[in-house]
Amino acid sequence: MKETRERLSIGIALFDGAEELDWAGPWEVLSYWSKYRPEDNIEVFTVAKDNSRPIECAKGLRVLADYSWDSAPEIDVLVYPGGRGTRAQVGDEELRAWVRSVHERARLTTSVCTGAYILADAGLLKGRPATTHWDDFDGLLAIDGSIEARRNERFVDDDDIITAAGISAGIDMALYLIVRLHSEDRAREIKRRIQYEPEPPV
Amino acid sequence: MKETRERLSIGIALFDGAEELDWAGPWEVLSYWSKYRPEDNIEVFTVAKDNSRPIECAKGLRVLADYSWDSAPEIDVLVYPGGRGTRAQVGDEELRAWVRSVHERARLTTSVCTGAYILADAGLLKGRPATTHWDDFDGLLAIDGSIEARRNERFVDDDDIITAAGISAGIDMALYLIVRLHSEDRAREIKRRIQYEPEPPV
Repeated sequence: MKETRERLSIGIALFDGAEELDWAGPWEVLSYWSKYRPEDNIEVFTVAKDNSRPIECAKGLRVLADYSWDSAPEIDVLVYPGGRGTRAQVGDEELRAWVRSVHERARLTTSVCTGAYILADAGLLKGRPATTHWDDFDGLLAIDGSIEARRNERFVDDDDIITAAGISAGIDMALYLIVRLHSEDRAREIKRRIQYEPEPPV
Repeated sequence: MKETRERLSIGIALFDGAEELDWAGPWEVLSYWSKYRPEDNIEVFTVAKDNSRPIECAKGLRVLADYSWDSAPEIDVLVYPGGRGTRAQVGDEELRAWVRSVHERARLTTSVCTGAYILADAGLLKGRPATTHWDDFDGLLAIDGSIEARRNERFVDDDDIITAAGISAGIDMALYLIVRLHSEDRAREIKRRIQYEPEPPV
């Protein structure tokens, strides 16, 4: 890629009932990249339909979004997390319209966990391969039976749409986004900085 | 362990400049446990010196703490995250006093990343083995040269004090906390629920 980069904006969606690590994993990876390598010209922000009040996440964490749908900058990369809040969002016409309009202008539309429900509900996954939380494929296929369920992949890269498996899989997907948007070397650097050298004790 | 458990409270400290994944990793693991297995009688909350205003984390995320130091319930397990905010906290007498008083009554005092600076600064790590972010051992030993630096461990269990390595290592440590506080089976169950089966793409 060329040395002088245009600014690339990454918007991470927040909503009531969003699972905390679904968004906090990608937030850490991508905002660490943005701050550690300012020359890469990456901007990362959170965006909610309404950012005038705290968002209450799935496990009770209260967080303030940087922007509302209306005030947010153009989004080049959308990250849509999952969590129990996505159930209530399926069928929401306003949300469908927002997701479609972001996707039309974005370079990449991505989801973590049941965030895939929202991409599916907006019609973006029709006939395409995708993944979600291991326990939520029935729910995903109930929204759109034409989706090619990839049950054994950590994340599925289908060109302009990338879906990740459950909760912690968003960390792996976010590192892969750095590969897609920059290079393997940069992804490796950020991985080392956040010491993502997992050693699960069980 | 016996079937009827006393309530066990886990307090996760928040402060300006706390690194997001340092606390969000343990938050996800432990609050998932708390909600998924209510019969285990675990309470997880965030606590800041002052919870009347948003905490601004290291990468700019704004979050509201559940309790202040004064309003928080008794803390059985303290999780102290790291982040650039810890540098300014070294030498803070009020914080030292709070950490010592929590530690005296707690069952476990733990840290992630440069959260170890704060335990060291309160005198808790004197002559004891500990770890921190791979790039921050010099800083840790400058606070207390008697610490036995464990550079190659993901987390160090030294009885009533557990320290974890950098940022994402808090996830591994939090799963280990479930082992210590409950069982390997329970830790394995929560690991599967949050799909913590990492496949770093680089």
